[in-house]
Amino acid sequence: MDPLDVLINKNQISAFYQPIISADKQIVVGYEVFARMNTEEGPQSLGSFFNDDSIPEEYRDEIDDHVQTLALEKGLLNPELYLFLNINIHSLVKDDGDRLMDKLFSYQKKGISLERIVLEIKESDYATNYSDIKHLITYIQSTGVNIAIGNVGISSSNLERLAKLNPNIVKVNVGFLEGDKFPELYRDVLHSLSVLTRKLGATLLFEGIDTYSKLNFAWKNGARYYQGYYLGRPTDSFVDVEFCKGTIKKEFHHFIDYERKKIKSQLQLADSLTQSLKLTLKSIKSYDLYDEMVISIAKALTDTTFRVYLCDQDGFQQSSNAVKSDEGIWKLEKESRQKNWSWRPYFLENIVRMDFEKKGILSDLYTDIEKDEMIRTFSYPMENGLFLFIDIPYSYLYEQDGLL
Amino acid sequence: MDPLDVLINKNQISAFYQPIISADKQIVVGYEVFARMNTEEGPQSLGSFFNDDSIPEEYRDEIDDHVQTLALEKGLLNPELYLFLNINIHSLVKDDGDRLMDKLFSYQKKGISLERIVLEIKESDYATNYSDIKHLITYIQSTGVNIAIGNVGISSSNLERLAKLNPNIVKVNVGFLEGDKFPELYRDVLHSLSVLTRKLGATLLFEGIDTYSKLNFAWKNGARYYQGYYLGRPTDSFVDVEFCKGTIKKEFHHFIDYERKKIKSQLQLADSLTQSLKLTLKSIKSYDLYDEMVISIAKALTDTTFRVYLCDQDGFQQSSNAVKSDEGIWKLEKESRQKNWSWRPYFLENIVRMDFEKKGILSDLYTDIEKDEMIRTFSYPMENGLFLFIDIPYSYLYEQDGLL
Repeated sequence: MDPLDVLINKNQISAFYQPIISADKQIVVGYEVFARMNTEEGPQSLGSFFNDDSIPEEYRDEIDDHVQTLALEKGLLNPELYLFLNINIHSLVKDDGDRLMDKLFSYQKKGISLERIVLEIKESDYATNYSDIKHLITYIQSTGVNIAIGNVGISSSNLERLAKLNPNIVKVNVGFLEGDKFPELYRDVLHSLSVLTRKLGATLLFEGIDTYSKLNFAWKNGARYYQGYYLGRPTDSFVDVEFCKGTIKKEFHHFIDYERKKIKSQLQLADSLTQSLKLTLKSIKSYDLYDEMVISIAKALTDTTFRVYLCDQDGFQQSSNAVKSDEGIWKLEKESRQKNWSWRPYFLENIVRMDFEKKGILSDLYTDIEKDEMIRTFSYPMENGLFLFIDIPYSYLYEQDGLL
Repeated sequence: MDPLDVLINKNQISAFYQPIISADKQIVVGYEVFARMNTEEGPQSLGSFFNDDSIPEEYRDEIDDHVQTLALEKGLLNPELYLFLNINIHSLVKDDGDRLMDKLFSYQKKGISLERIVLEIKESDYATNYSDIKHLITYIQSTGVNIAIGNVGISSSNLERLAKLNPNIVKVNVGFLEGDKFPELYRDVLHSLSVLTRKLGATLLFEGIDTYSKLNFAWKNGARYYQGYYLGRPTDSFVDVEFCKGTIKKEFHHFIDYERKKIKSQLQLADSLTQSLKLTLKSIKSYDLYDEMVISIAKALTDTTFRVYLCDQDGFQQSSNAVKSDEGIWKLEKESRQKNWSWRPYFLENIVRMDFEKKGILSDLYTDIEKDEMIRTFSYPMENGLFLFIDIPYSYLYEQDGLL
């Protein structure tokens, strides 16, 4: 689209609104605002206009301002909804946010709550002049206006910068992911991002949700807000706040059902390992010969495990590793004695929990450094004050339902 | 130092070695190699020489090659140790790694295992030509040589790029952190990084450990390898592999003791809340009036909590929120009924676990979105099939030992 056409046809530009749905209420809680040009071929996006650096910034700011006005007028009629306004961080910094904040304050007087305004900044935009904008953002947040950081997580996620900026909302774009299977890589990265936002107290929003499985992905990763074509496209009007409530409730039910089965399988595995162990332990004559003990246990549970060992309550390994060879023969690795495992994530916590609750714990799925494959570990408190560790290989987990 | 001085005095350049200590064995498992120039004022670092882009790369490569030779010769005498060699990624890419790999293969013939070689690349160095080096790195790893990514985590941590590169070792530098208290921010970011490396199966190494509290920090964050002045400075010779074993064992014991007390406090809080709850529940007449029920429970536990509510097994909230005002008055928030919480991290898992184990669970410490302060949640399975949630404020946790 010719930039000049845009500038002289300002009255043909309207604001379009894409619904943002909350997982907790399953209703529309707000809209992201987009600029659209009415043309003979229908409404056209102005994305290329806003991103064209050859167009002087003041012209682009003028159109931005126009669309913001349209959106804020609409917002006046719907005071309970969030309005997500895309902000050009360079224009904002230029006048210390004065123009925009004056505008927002004037709408506050007309009845819009600043707590309902979300200014959305692209992650890439604050990469270069980070320190300039940190102060400005803190000031804006102090007025009640929310800051969302967009495009986070997949193409570029700088955790430290993100954490320092302390946004109210973190927007993760999953639009570009293709197919129904998401690479393990993204699952791991998004899991870390989800852990961080939980700790920071930021709200996670997934955008670009264009399929059922991406909605599932967002739900599983702790996203509170959802946005995308699968739920609703941008249009020139607001939709009924409950327009997808029924669908989402039904889909949540499927997600929950599926996950519940998975978690139950894990608890059942822990239970059945406990039963087998109790039986095996009855037949063990001496609790003093640790290596004999791990070999006996390993052989009794040979279908379930590839590595068995004993640690004391400080994490020092007391037995050798019993390790199964590819031919299924159990051997002892003497050099693993006296290694300490207290530094491993969750290790000490699990030891204390087992000691307290007197029952075994099945770990999450993680990559074993030596085998370089996904495994789980079952740990169990022994009567002699030691703790037993049983590493379960991928091949076993794969064959059971709900353990991956 | 004058670059020319460096070049004409190559015979005055020696390799210095800083020990890397493993948490599992508490012994030296390897050394990072540094170039040092012997001068009248003693050995001088060549860092500025290597980082000076005005010096032609081939000159810097020549010195690099010289130091690598010295280190590999030393490595021949200590075949069980890792050698961490700092690699200039630009030089490596220039000839597809041929020079370096030929050198490593020739030392392999002399008896060095390639599994003991670690090539260390700076995170910032692969930022610009990432795709060029991914293939090269995969090839190098296929020979058995390890790849470490240095300087990760604090000044710049791009999780996705890191995950894609799939390094064997991730080096996090904590050298610049000052004082004994680490900002919560870094704790959160490093926790996420630690979660990611666990999932990826990469080994975490903390470098720049120059105080006791940084060693504690590394231990708590799942680091397997430690490096820093607190443990050992770079010198021109190898030290005894057990030189700090005694100290580290003692310090681990302190760490473990302290953490064990913390975890016990948490389990005890869960226990005592369970006891108080059981008492309170006895006095409740009807299990059908959910709002009356949460108000009664809230009032009975008023010192411990600021928010109480009930959910069903799908995470739909069945009662209003009982919320305590600043004046200590309990009120009901009716609008929170029917909200769904199944999307929150750990929520569903905890529901299923409680259902299975018939006992309450105390959560980790996380930021409550509405209050914007760190809290914990105690959840408890009720006899009517519902689940009770009791949010515990920071002020309460702060006053008890071991709950933060």
